[in-house]
This record gives sequence, structure tokens and C-alpha cells, in this order.
Amino acid sequence: MASFCTLSFPGNLNMAMVSDLPKNLHLLPHTLMGTDLQTQFHRKINQTKKRSCGGVCASLSENGEYYSQKPSTPLLDTINYPIHLKNLSITELKQLSDELRSDVIFNVSNTGGHLGSSLGVVELTVALHHVFDTPRDKILWDVGHQSYPHKILTGRRDKMHTIRQTGGLAGFTKRSESDYDCFGTGHSSTTISAGLGMAVGRDLMGRGNNVVAVIGDGAMTAGQAYEAMNNAGYLDSDMIVILNDNKQVSLPTATLDGPIPPVGALSSALSRLQSNGPLRELREVAKGVTKSIGGPMHQLASKVDEYARGMISGSGSTLFEELGLYYIGPVDGHNMDDLVSILNEVRKTKTNGPILIHVITEKGRGYPYAERAADKYHGVTKFDPATGKQFKSSSKTQSYTTYFAEALIAEAEADKDIVAIHAAMGGGTGLNLFHRRFPSRCFDVGIAEQHAVTFAAGLACEGIKPFCAIYSSFIQRGYDQVVHDVDLQKLPVRFAMDRAGLVGADGPTHCGAFDVTFMACLPNMIVMAPADEAELFHMVATAASIDDRPSCFRYPRGNGIGVKLPIGNKGIPIEIGKGRILIEGERVALLGYGTAVQNCLEASTLLDQRGLKVTVADARFCKPLDRNLIRGLAKSHDVLITVEEGSVGGFGSHVAQFMALDGLLDGNLKLRPMVLPDRYIDHGSPEFQIDQAGLSPSHIAATVFNILGKTREAIEVLT
Amino acid sequence: MASFCTLSFPGNLNMAMVSDLPKNLHLLPHTLMGTDLQTQFHRKINQTKKRSCGGVCASLSENGEYYSQKPSTPLLDTINYPIHLKNLSITELKQLSDELRSDVIFNVSNTGGHLGSSLGVVELTVALHHVFDTPRDKILWDVGHQSYPHKILTGRRDKMHTIRQTGGLAGFTKRSESDYDCFGTGHSSTTISAGLGMAVGRDLMGRGNNVVAVIGDGAMTAGQAYEAMNNAGYLDSDMIVILNDNKQVSLPTATLDGPIPPVGALSSALSRLQSNGPLRELREVAKGVTKSIGGPMHQLASKVDEYARGMISGSGSTLFEELGLYYIGPVDGHNMDDLVSILNEVRKTKTNGPILIHVITEKGRGYPYAERAADKYHGVTKFDPATGKQFKSSSKTQSYTTYFAEALIAEAEADKDIVAIHAAMGGGTGLNLFHRRFPSRCFDVGIAEQHAVTFAAGLACEGIKPFCAIYSSFIQRGYDQVVHDVDLQKLPVRFAMDRAGLVGADGPTHCGAFDVTFMACLPNMIVMAPADEAELFHMVATAASIDDRPSCFRYPRGNGIGVKLPIGNKGIPIEIGKGRILIEGERVALLGYGTAVQNCLEASTLLDQRGLKVTVADARFCKPLDRNLIRGLAKSHDVLITVEEGSVGGFGSHVAQFMALDGLLDGNLKLRPMVLPDRYIDHGSPEFQIDQAGLSPSHIAATVFNILGKTREAIEVLT
Repeated sequence: MASFCTLSFPGNLNMAMVSDLPKNLHLLPHTLMGTDLQTQFHRKINQTKKRSCGGVCASLSENGEYYSQKPSTPLLDTINYPIHLKNLSITELKQLSDELRSDVIFNVSNTGGHLGSSLGVVELTVALHHVFDTPRDKILWDVGHQSYPHKILTGRRDKMHTIRQTGGLAGFTKRSESDYDCFGTGHSSTTISAGLGMAVGRDLMGRGNNVVAVIGDGAMTAGQAYEAMNNAGYLDSDMIVILNDNKQVSLPTATLDGPIPPVGALSSALSRLQSNGPLRELREVAKGVTKSIGGPMHQLASKVDEYARGMISGSGSTLFEELGLYYIGPVDGHNMDDLVSILNEVRKTKTNGPILIHVITEKGRGYPYAERAADKYHGVTKFDPATGKQFKSSSKTQSYTTYFAEALIAEAEADKDIVAIHAAMGGGTGLNLFHRRFPSRCFDVGIAEQHAVTFAAGLACEGIKPFCAIYSSFIQRGYDQVVHDVDLQKLPVRFAMDRAGLVGADGPTHCGAFDVTFMACLPNMIVMAPADEAELFHMVATAASIDDRPSCFRYPRGNGIGVKLPIGNKGIPIEIGKGRILIEGERVALLGYGTAVQNCLEASTLLDQRGLKVTVADARFCKPLDRNLIRGLAKSHDVLITVEEGSVGGFGSHVAQFMALDGLLDGNLKLRPMVLPDRYIDHGSPEFQIDQAGLSPSHIAATVFNILGKTREAIEVLT
Repeated sequence: MASFCTLSFPGNLNMAMVSDLPKNLHLLPHTLMGTDLQTQFHRKINQTKKRSCGGVCASLSENGEYYSQKPSTPLLDTINYPIHLKNLSITELKQLSDELRSDVIFNVSNTGGHLGSSLGVVELTVALHHVFDTPRDKILWDVGHQSYPHKILTGRRDKMHTIRQTGGLAGFTKRSESDYDCFGTGHSSTTISAGLGMAVGRDLMGRGNNVVAVIGDGAMTAGQAYEAMNNAGYLDSDMIVILNDNKQVSLPTATLDGPIPPVGALSSALSRLQSNGPLRELREVAKGVTKSIGGPMHQLASKVDEYARGMISGSGSTLFEELGLYYIGPVDGHNMDDLVSILNEVRKTKTNGPILIHVITEKGRGYPYAERAADKYHGVTKFDPATGKQFKSSSKTQSYTTYFAEALIAEAEADKDIVAIHAAMGGGTGLNLFHRRFPSRCFDVGIAEQHAVTFAAGLACEGIKPFCAIYSSFIQRGYDQVVHDVDLQKLPVRFAMDRAGLVGADGPTHCGAFDVTFMACLPNMIVMAPADEAELFHMVATAASIDDRPSCFRYPRGNGIGVKLPIGNKGIPIEIGKGRILIEGERVALLGYGTAVQNCLEASTLLDQRGLKVTVADARFCKPLDRNLIRGLAKSHDVLITVEEGSVGGFGSHVAQFMALDGLLDGNLKLRPMVLPDRYIDHGSPEFQIDQAGLSPSHIAATVFNILGKTREAIEVLT
């Protein structure tokens, strides 16, 4: 709520936020309550109204209506690279921002993608590229959701219609895509670390460029951001951290019941900062900056400086100051005058150490449908800009994510000790559904996978049954905790690894390629993967029943295949280490792991059509392996092909290790483990990716024909 | 230096700390400088002298002399479990502390182990077990270095002579060892997370026990501690965090040039807290605690509370308060009266949320040789208690760690762009040697592996050539950063992974079992391992020369085998992906990876003695594999055995994957990948561990005989 007082709004007042008033009152200091608050509130609204009529609406409709045709963008059309906006006036920069915003809305309405974050940083992006000299100066966009305006201004406007599509622009910053993308992102909270490395590298190389890391308040909850600030405050290299505070600690994707207040104590601290007083007047800030960081370091400790700091932040000390960053703020992130002045001031002033500029922005800013939406249109499908209505492709089945949530709710209905943990991904993991049913048994710990895992370990020590739902590629960030706190102690924590395997539009940063490899090497871990959504229900039940050791199961992005679900959505535990044969055939056995089983089944159809009846088996478990199943397949077939959507070292390697030690490879059996190729696969359609990976049904069938020496059929089935 | 003013010292004044005075002056606020400081300084010394003569020295010699015979411990002899110290008076608790301290010194002088940390928490341990009701109440010891006094008081005194030895007590807390070890530790900064899990679990289960996490200021630099505090401050479950502040951010093992000031901005913040005024009078604190946390939560926001807080902490707001923890301190961690009173007060008072008690201790406290030592006797070998002299076993060779440092220094002499990064392990990684030679090119980032990796990535972006030296088991904590920030972007960061494989006395928490598995699955990573120390020099040179992609190499704990080193300690880059044949033999080929090559060579000697001449090859690279070498071995032998000190999914799996796809397993070749067994191996002697692992030369030789059907010889060679 405090941010409400500090933001300006377009003509149509965002009533959703006003109605939030009572809910968030506890965040306000006493001094702001009562008549003070009322006065300030109305003052701000009035300011706002005045502002929004002063040329800001060049291309945006006042009444919130947008049209599907390409908006007119006369100024933006003259900007291909940041160099072209160096000489613009503040008024022109404002107009450019408006045009840029409408261009982002138009583009994303046609492609889908991350909209809300990008709309929130339009003015900031324009101001940064106006003030700083990229690519010589380095701007790092944390996570990268918000980089669309940056991409448009840095030579990629004509490719924006390809974003997140096969062969098109990436949805995040990517070094190989542009010199202006100095660091690739996708996972959160990396940019202060990387920026500090660039700043130290610059100093070692004797260069003089600036380094700016733009990071959200959500990303600030991750331990890495803290580690990096602690080190930055110690090393005292010059760098600028821009804290883009939009009160979005947890990704609001698929929020069910309206906005959820940000989790984590840090949010309260940020709210206090925001509410310390009205935004400072620009002149005052500029004076403070010059006075306080203009001199050598020892002046920072002087009374003059302390005065200036107090004047700027309105508080004596903040978390950031404790960590050695020079705090400036809060700054209105939609006020071009303020942004340009402060950034100019900071750039021109010779500093001695890291500076943090606390910028307040509104996610979804300037697009009323996004502003009003609970999820701020964080990630959207294609939509109609005039109505904000998203075109959801209808599907007969739900996502694996939803099935997981339903399965877990069914287990939790039956067992009061089951709880769920996620790391700021209530929507992405489906646990918002669990939260709605069991609010006191669902824990959103913020973007903090390390803590999530050990927190779960602590819960398990007390006899609670924790399910930790974390994307496959994000559990990498809690890996040491999985090893050291969970597996080594044999604690029954259950890891639900969503987005396993290829993930389509999000690309390689989010690809869950390595989980089987890095989980199955752990001695105490049960490692499993369902072949379809019914199996997922059973594996959730299985994990719930495993109470003497850790377990994990992986499932993909995307929808179920439409098999019959168990009665009441309640799975039945599977015997540990027990696979199953789906089709009995001869000569060749296809042993799939996880949803790759479906590709094996489709391959068998292709082969059947060409007169070859092969066996198809579903391993279910990578650990423990179904040794009898494998022995049986090995002894009754000439060829055994394992198939998985995972890297080398995973299921196929465990099968090979067992078979080698068991002597099953000593004879003439031909073993062929099919895994993801040894390279990263670009974002694109699922079909494109699976084809690139060589794991499509056709590839599997072709592999069979090739081994059998039927080269002609192999080529045929591939074309 | 600020801590000096707050600590009491035994009769013999620690002159080392006094001489530190000028060096640390920058940490002092202006108000403490000049005559104020002098006055306070002398006042404290006088207090100290008085205290140290008041019965504190029951069993410790005033002049710092200790004798090798078992000290007299009449009171400690009556204490087997915490229940036995419930009714002791403060005077008796003091005496118990003194006896406990002398017992720790005596024990560790006979066993070696982690001494300094344990000596620092003697009073705290006694006070905690006096006030709290373990094991019902949970006490978590972060890292666990400091848990020796806890072990002595919880039924394990009679086994202390076995600590860190085969079959003996673990060097850290371990759940399977005692009900009083409620959470196993070894890696840093996990206990706030685990403790919060236990607190939430307690609440869900409707129990009423206390949870206390004891964590050092060094561990506080890790991101996980911050993530956990942020979540604790949000969830508001009752728990107590004891910040054991001994100004030891970086592990001071093998410090070369005297104490290094703690790295990280957090240290300065803690110093400011310490120096805000003299330690509060006990009565005042107790009053403040009762008044401020006695009521319901909303009182916390009241003016009364703010007053109480200010009174206690002497500052308006601290980093911990920003994160939602109720801060109490600083407290003298060697003053039994204060500790017992405050802990009692906190235990008795119904709180609403997490409390942080900031306790100031001195590492090595009470043992003058430890207090004076630069490393505070962090980890010691056996030593003579009377002289403090450690019995170092003489060796003709140096540790791999030292060879790594020498190799890197040689590379850095030749290439000014090479820099080194470690995470608070300057001694453990050998980089203190590098730091001495290149102080501006060595970066200690604190206990912050995540940041270390991405910081290195940022450096690499600027053309710097970073070597990131992190223990194999600790790089697990930066794994996501290795994947997402380094490998995916193909940045040339070099990972030097020390303590790879089994690590002896430190046991499974520090065992480097998984690195080959989780690194070699990454598409862009070059993965290599030296067979001996000369090869390590060459691989450091190789890594330095690889400038278009990331690379890593692993090497073990322990000393080199005594091979000739390259001239001038300067290695020569090895051709990427090129292994070598060491012994040409027949029928059976042993293909070793890393120092397992030595076991293969010894096995070949055992086999040779029994008339079997086998081939021995050194793979050098797990990625890229030397395909020609493997093809050659496969085609000219009946049996191929790979040997590595690593888990399944690593080198052996990469060999099997290649051979399967290459058709090399289609015939009658027998492949046997020998890896670490699928269980954790307890701490113990290296010989015990390698025997447990089944990877000794005898085991390899027996495997060969078994495959060849020579069962009798197999049994013979094993016995």
C-alpha cells in the first residue's frame, strides 16, 4: 500500500489497489495513518491526474482501450540503437516511453511472453539508455523478464515478433544474441554477482565504463543477492545496483485469489523505506548525491554525509547500508525527470563503491488490464489488446502441474502431516491450489531454493511430511542442501521436480536436463518419473508413503495425454523399484523413463506399421532400478534401447552400470542409451526441440532400424 | 578490535590482539577513538583481571602452562548428561566450564581436530544445556566445528578419544550418533533453515519445545542464512538464533601472515553493533527482554518496545531487525552470569517470532597458544598441551593443495590476467599462497559459493581468466551458477575442485563423491583429473590455456606421490581429450581417472606378481573422452575396467555411454566400471575408507581375477 502513495497513475484510477488499502495497513508506520495518510493520498492522486494529461498519452488511449492494429510510434521509429536517443529532451523521452510501452503491448499481444515486468521498466529502460553508453557501459537485467523494452531499443525491434519462438529472439537477455546483452539471465538474482565481477574486471583491465545491475525486490530475497552485496560492500568497486521494487516477491503467475502480499521480512523493510516520507524532491536528491558521494571514501563516514543520507533515505540505516551499499531512494520509477537527473548525477560523480538506487515501479504499468490483474500479466499468451482477453488454447487435459497439485491435495486430505513448500512459485508449481485448500500447510519461502530444501529437512526431522515443489532447473540452486541436509541424513523429503526435460519457449535456462543425473547419484534417494498423468498421481502417493528416506519425481511442462485418472484423484502407491512392460514384442526392447515412454509407444506404432513388433517397457524408477525387468529384457532381446529426456549420467547410465556389473553386456546384446544431446537446445516449439534432441518417435524408430541394418527404413521413417 | 574491548582475558594478556590495534582502527566508530578508547580499554582489562582470579582458574594454569596428563575435572566427572547440570549454581557452572575447556584441550591434543571453535563456545554450551531441556529442546550447531563441548556434555565424553577416527565419533554433529544431535552439520549456514523447519514442525504438531540455532558470523555471510532469516522474520515462528560472533568470517586454516581481517561488509556492521557501547548491564537487559517481548506481537511496534530495543542494542535498527528478527545484544559469550540470565529470560518469556542473540566470543578462548595463533588453532593435529606445539607428520611431498597453489602462481606470473577466487577458504585451498604473491588478484568472497561462481563469470566476461578454487563438496552449493551462469554461456571459468573423492577424517559431509557426475553432464565443460602432482601442474596450465569454454579439474585431499615436478613449477598444457597408456599389457585393461590411476598401477603390480601383465591407462579427461584410446583398449583386450573415486554417473558412465553408442559393447568385451559404492562412507583413515569403497589396489586386482574366473587368486589378493 505504501507504494500506492508514491506512484502516479493514468487517468483511469486503479481501483484494485485502492481496495487493497485496509489489507496492507499493517505495513504502514503509525505516522502515515489517519489524516496524514488521507492528505498525502489525495495530494498524490491530484499530482497524478495532472501528469497523465501532460503529453504522456501520445499513443495510449485515456480510457484504457487499445486496438489491435499497430500503434503509431513516430519517435520510436527513429530509434534503432541507444545512440539515437542521446539527444532527446525529457519531453521526448517521455513520449518515447509511451510509444515503447504501446509497442511492447502490441508485440506481446501477438506473441505472448512476459508482459507485466517489461511494462514496469519502460521509463527506467529509456532513462538508462539515455544516460549510459551501452554496450561500453554494462546493463544487466536480472532474470530478464523485463528486457523486452531493452531489446526494442538495442537493434532488435524488427525481430520482436519472433520472441520465444523457434529461431526467434530469446525471452531473456542472451550474450550470443546481442552485444547489448552483456550477461545472460533466466534464473533470478545473479546480476549483482556478475556485475561485481565485471566491475572488478574493468578495474583490473584499467577501463572506465559503468556497470549497472537492475534487480527486482523478489530477486533480492535470494541468498545470492545478499552474498553479492556483502562482497560488493567489501570490495568497494564502483557499480550501480538498481533495486526495481514493484512488490512482487513471488512470481504471481496463475494467482488464484487476487494479489498475495509479498512473502519475506525484506518486503516489510522495503515498505518502511518507501513510507519514510514522500518521494524526495529531485533538487534535494541531486544535491545530496553530489555532496555525499562526491569526495573520497572517508567523507562517507562524516557527519555531512550522514546528514545527506538521512535526507535522502529518510532513515538512519537500511539493510543495504549495513551491507556497504550507498543507498539512494526511493525514486519514482515512472518519473522521467527524476530518473534521468539521478542517473546522470550518479554517472557523473566519481564514486568509491557500490551504490543502490531504490526505484519504485508498478508491474503492468500503463496497460490497465495488466495493472488490474492479480498477476499483473506476468506471463501471457497471445491476447486482444483492446480487451486484454488472452487467447488460451483449449485442451482436453490439464497440465502436469495441475495434476500434481490435485494429487497432492488428495494425499493431504488423507494425511494431515503432509505440507508443501515452494520457492516463490505458487503459480508455476500449482501449489496455489494447495494453498487455497490448506493455507496453513503451504509455505512460500521466497526465491530461496537453498532455504526451501533445508527448511523441508527440518520439518521432516519433526515428523512432518514435506513435499518440496521446485522446477528441475531451479533445484540446481538447492543441490548442496539436497545432498548434505536431506540425502546424507536420509530424511524423508519429497522433491516434485516440475519442468523436467525440454521446456519450449523458455529455452535452455529453464531446461530440466540434469536432474536425473544429479539426483540418482545420491545414495539414499528414490528417483522416479511418471510416464503419464495417472502415473503422476500414483507417484505422488508413492512419495507420500516413502517415509524413511528422500524421494523425487520429475514431470514435464505441458499437458497430460488424456489417460484415465485414479478415482477421487487419489493415487495408489507403486511398489518401489517396480517397472512395467506395456507392449510385448521381440528382438528389440524400448525401455523408456518418464514421459519418454510415450515417444517409445509412438515409435513402436511406427515400427509396427513397418512390420516390426517391439517390446515397450516403462522403467518408472531410475533408482532403485527394476533389475529383474532389465535382466528379462536383456535376455529375451537382441537390442535394448533406453530413452529419456535427460542428460548423460542419468537413467541410461544407471542401466548401463547395472548391466555392465551384472555381466549383461558381456554377450552380444546391443545397448543403446538415448539421451539429450551434449549441447544446449535453443528455445522453440516442443516439436522443434524434441526433433533437435533426436528423441522423437521417428528418431527412436530410425535408431531401431539402423541397429538392425535396415538403413532404407531408417531414412524413410525420419522423412 | 572492537571485540577486544568487550572480552575478558585470562591472566596472561593476549598481546597479539593488542598489537592488532592500529590495523583494525578503521572498524571503530569515531566516538571510541582517542581517550575514550583508552579508558574503556583499561577498564575492561581491570575487570578481566579481577574476574580471572575469582575461581575461574580451577583447572587452568594462570601462566598458560598445560601438562600432558589428564587434567583434574572433579565436577565434570559427575556430568554425563545435561540433566546433571540443571541444579548447578553459577559458580559451579563456571567451574564446569573451566574443567570442560581443559578436557577439550586434553582430548584434542591426543586426537587432533577442531579446537579453536570448541574453546570459544564452552561457556555458551554449558549455559545452553543448563537452561534448555535437550533433547526435547533442539540445539543446532552450525557447521559443527564447535560441537566438542556439546558432545562431552551429552553422553559421549568417554568416546572423545575416538573423534574423527575410524569407527569413532564424528567431527561434526550427526543425527545417527546421538539424540542430542538434532541436525547433522558439516557444511556451513544450514541451521537457521533447519531450525525454522523444526519450529514450524513443532507448531504444526502442537508441541512446545524450544529451538536454538547457534551460528557463527562467518556462516552469516552465506546466502542461505539470509534466506532463512528472511523467511523466519516472515513466518514469525518462535525460535532463537544465537549469533556466535568471533570475527572469523573466513576459516583461518593455514593463515600465512597473521590474522586477516574478516571479509565482507557484514563484518563491519557487526563491529558497529559491538562498538555501540559497553556491554549492557545484565539487569538492564533482563528488564528490556521482559518488557519488550513479553506481550503480544503488536506491542513490538510500540514506542515502549522501540525504547527497549534501543536500550538493548544501542542502535535503532540492525540488519537482523530489518529481516524481522528481534535483536538482543551484544552479550559477552564468556560471562556465565549474563548468558544464563539472558537465556533463562528468553526461554521463560512467551515470544512471538524469532529472536537473535548476538554473543561475542573469542575463538581459541582460554588456551593461550590458540588465542595467540593466527589460525586460533581452528583445526589442529595432535599437539603437546604444555607447549602448544603440533606434531606434524613429516612427509617428503607436499599436499595437492599446495601444488595447486604453486602451479597457479607459476601461471599467474606468466599471465597477468589470471586471478583466483575462493569462498572463505584461503588456507584450505592453498590460495593464501597466491594471495601473498598477488594480493590484488586474489578474491576471498566469504562463505558464498553461489556468488563466487557468478562473480567469476562476470570477470570472465571482461577477459579476465578466473580460477575458482572450491572443494568438490562445496561446489555443490554453487551448482546452479556453474550451469546457468558459466556453462550455458560458455564462459572460460576454471574450477579447481580440491578434496575430490574420499576425505578421511572429515567424513561424508566433505566427501567429494559427485563432482564428476554433475560437472561432466554439462555440455560445454572440459572435465579432467590429474593422476599425480606433476599432472596437476600440467592441468592447471591446460585450464589456463582453455579460454573459450569452462573447465574443471579435481584433485584429492592428501599429499603428492613424489613424482618429478615440471621445471620452475610451470606446467605444460596437455592436448585436450588426450589420455595416455602407462603400461602395455594384455587381456585386461585398467583405465583410471584421476588419482585412481595410482590404485590401478598398484593393482597391476599385484597382478604382475601373480603372472598377469595388464594394461594401465590414464584417461586424464572425462570430457572430452579420448575416444581413440578407448577404442584401442576395447579392441585389443577382453576386459576393460574403469576406476574412479567418484559416484555412478561420472567417468565410468561417460565411457559406457560412448562405448554403447559406438558399438564397442556389442561384442564380447567385458566392461566393468568401478565407482564409489552407493552409500555414504563414514569418516576414518584413508585406508579404511578406500577399503570400504572397494577401490583399493587389492579390490581392483581381485575384480580382474574374478572376471577371468580365477576365484582363488581373487580371494588370495584380497587377504
